[in-house]
Amino acid sequence: MQPLKTSKTYDMPLYMQVYRRYRETIASGKLRPGDRVPSVRNLASELNLSRGTVEMAYQMLSSEGYFLSRGPAGTVVSPRLKTLHEAEIPPVSGPLSSITSPRASETGSVRPLQLGLPALDMFPRKTWARLAGHNLRSLEAITMAYPAPTGYEPLRRAIAAYLGISRGIACTHEQVFITAGYQGALELVCRTLLQPGDTGWYEDPGYLLARHFLERAGMLLEPVPVDEEGLNVDIGQQRAARARFAVVTPTHQSPMGMALSLPRRLQLLEWASHRQAWIIEDDYDSEFRYHGRPLPALKSLDREQRVLYTGTFSKVLFPGLRLAYLVVPYSQVERFADAAKYLCGPGTVQTQATVADFMEQGHFARHLRRMRALYATRREYLVNALQEKCGSALNIQPQAGGIHVLARLTTDASDRALAAAAQSHGLAIQALNDWQRGRSLQGGLLMGFANVTSAKMASDLVNRLVSATGLT
Amino acid sequence: MQPLKTSKTYDMPLYMQVYRRYRETIASGKLRPGDRVPSVRNLASELNLSRGTVEMAYQMLSSEGYFLSRGPAGTVVSPRLKTLHEAEIPPVSGPLSSITSPRASETGSVRPLQLGLPALDMFPRKTWARLAGHNLRSLEAITMAYPAPTGYEPLRRAIAAYLGISRGIACTHEQVFITAGYQGALELVCRTLLQPGDTGWYEDPGYLLARHFLERAGMLLEPVPVDEEGLNVDIGQQRAARARFAVVTPTHQSPMGMALSLPRRLQLLEWASHRQAWIIEDDYDSEFRYHGRPLPALKSLDREQRVLYTGTFSKVLFPGLRLAYLVVPYSQVERFADAAKYLCGPGTVQTQATVADFMEQGHFARHLRRMRALYATRREYLVNALQEKCGSALNIQPQAGGIHVLARLTTDASDRALAAAAQSHGLAIQALNDWQRGRSLQGGLLMGFANVTSAKMASDLVNRLVSATGLT
Repeated sequence: MQPLKTSKTYDMPLYMQVYRRYRETIASGKLRPGDRVPSVRNLASELNLSRGTVEMAYQMLSSEGYFLSRGPAGTVVSPRLKTLHEAEIPPVSGPLSSITSPRASETGSVRPLQLGLPALDMFPRKTWARLAGHNLRSLEAITMAYPAPTGYEPLRRAIAAYLGISRGIACTHEQVFITAGYQGALELVCRTLLQPGDTGWYEDPGYLLARHFLERAGMLLEPVPVDEEGLNVDIGQQRAARARFAVVTPTHQSPMGMALSLPRRLQLLEWASHRQAWIIEDDYDSEFRYHGRPLPALKSLDREQRVLYTGTFSKVLFPGLRLAYLVVPYSQVERFADAAKYLCGPGTVQTQATVADFMEQGHFARHLRRMRALYATRREYLVNALQEKCGSALNIQPQAGGIHVLARLTTDASDRALAAAAQSHGLAIQALNDWQRGRSLQGGLLMGFANVTSAKMASDLVNRLVSATGLT
Repeated sequence: MQPLKTSKTYDMPLYMQVYRRYRETIASGKLRPGDRVPSVRNLASELNLSRGTVEMAYQMLSSEGYFLSRGPAGTVVSPRLKTLHEAEIPPVSGPLSSITSPRASETGSVRPLQLGLPALDMFPRKTWARLAGHNLRSLEAITMAYPAPTGYEPLRRAIAAYLGISRGIACTHEQVFITAGYQGALELVCRTLLQPGDTGWYEDPGYLLARHFLERAGMLLEPVPVDEEGLNVDIGQQRAARARFAVVTPTHQSPMGMALSLPRRLQLLEWASHRQAWIIEDDYDSEFRYHGRPLPALKSLDREQRVLYTGTFSKVLFPGLRLAYLVVPYSQVERFADAAKYLCGPGTVQTQATVADFMEQGHFARHLRRMRALYATRREYLVNALQEKCGSALNIQPQAGGIHVLARLTTDASDRALAAAAQSHGLAIQALNDWQRGRSLQGGLLMGFANVTSAKMASDLVNRLVSATGLT
């Protein structure tokens, strides 16, 4: 059979047609429990089918309990069906072709100025395809079997080495867990160390999706304001000293962009070790810094082992990979490994193997170098266009890195209204106040620039923004 | 930099060494808050480094708050550090190289007679690599961006078409959710329709991993015995009529192998619609049937839309894909799509795209046909060897399909003891009573035969079993 190219309007296989016809006839009551049915031989010749085809249909009907074979006495509709109302045997339903697609089943999308997307045009597809192709042709049994829920070990090793050098994190590969994106890392932390109802500090403003995910997981989030030094630890301690965890973006606060200062880092670590609380460090885009090098991670100061470090491949490679990682304290490795068995895990081994090769063979470092330069340029395209056309309305926040621009409003206009207007014109611009839980801030617009490939495109997009919002 | 091939014993980059040396000097108290540090120029010439290297280190130290630049007045160790005990600035820790790998971080494995593994040697690697390679070289932005949490639409369509033809299930692609393995499907169901503390019927004996997963998810499982007609619905109703859900394997009970009879199917469906309970149909290996064709799914009788149908690619392709699917009632599509946003989802889009191509181009159907014939042969290898060498001790249960053998003990020896002995000899044999929750059954041994590639291998494995257990 070649059913897979067959749309539901095509013919069924013959055995299936026979099977279905009998089911319908019995369901409709035309054939009743105890009734004789023709022998395979007779029906086959009657319908001009092979006996094998009819046998197959009869076999299905018997094994499902519709038919009862009485050997020499022939085959009858099962008398057991007598105990059931015919109505209980449903007719065979056809495809529900007329139903329209619900909103929720949209596929992924790429929209102008979308946040969190790396430069999709500059990804080294050929190198990637070569490495992946090699993995696929030489698929080993071990990578085809049920994978380790903690992740593919060579990738865990490559990440541990990378973090040691570029992020100042000393860890062994056993501490590295590969996860299905940042959500997978949060899920693993929630399932291993936290309970629904636990309170956690949450940067305000802070990463929107993490907030949604954690709230959905039953966590109570205490918004803690950020200032020019990042998370205000004093306020956190005043408001919720007993919190069980804190989620922070110390390298490059999301979305404001400042780094958490050393005094604040030490204060946060002291609070965590004093309270035995956990710090979830989201190091989502430290790789992209145009001035200097990324700061070492908060994790690198984590003497008391309170920090759960997370990084992602969504921005350094691409989000479609759905790969991130979590570094846990060595003392917690077994607990996390045990919890990982009952979560979905990081998905296909082949993808993890390709990422491991990509890192080990130096393509990763090369790609990061190229992207750093590229993003500095593309950021300029967008910033220049914004300053040229909306210079008086927008105040672009300088940022040492990242792949998005935060443009603060110089007036007290509503950033939500402006973002909505921009979105209605197809621009994936977000409002700073949508990332804010406390009293609303001076407005701001968040825009991803990684896919702004030219000054011309930047100018076109900003023109669209202007005509959508009237900003100038 | 090429840090990624660098093991942690290699040298740090120079800027990192300078940075770390300063951090240690400050931590140790040799340099105190307010102390002057040499200018970039002086330190560079003193250490014979490029000024860029030193600048980079100073920049990191300043942005982390260790250094304070006073412009013309030079750079000092930040006076703000005065407010902190030196002890709070941890020394830079080295790699934890001496730690041994914990048991839990084992990678996936392939062991002789392992259950649930398809024939890894016969997978069409070349075709697969060609399709995947094509996908990878032509990576489109849409498949690189954040994917739809419900799954890649072309794959959802291919599955809907396949289920319509081969399983008698009429559904639209909107009802099909791609998940990270069967666990992902269970997770999605638990998160969408169930609450921790909900009671569910569970086949006894029944699929071990599902039991572990559901219990871990907080579900209370009521073991319901199976007989020659499958799940005993009467007993389920006596013991837990108010259960919120039932998990069943109607096509080929796991691990016993019988099909759920039509009367039982109708009784189960009636219970579910009367009680508004949910039936989770695990159709894990219906594709492999040596006699006749797989029975249509329970879902195909689901007039009242109480059945959540799950299928997996772990056995028809390979487990390393970590891909399964869930078909939900149309009325529930939006709820499931909303819940899916907060779960890990089905992983990399490219893998889903490759599976979709594999199905649409007919390779899937061809592969299934080949495997059906192959598994009939390989099952015979193992069954013949078992009957020849342990014929009196073991009673092989006839099965119409599947990829494992159930050999019941003819004595009342402990199957757990025998399985343990076999495992200690490297055989991944499982004991039937480990899959059983109620009073223990006449013992049985579960063995996967899909990777038993020859009569010779079968005979060797059974010899090993005999010498391990003394069974004859």
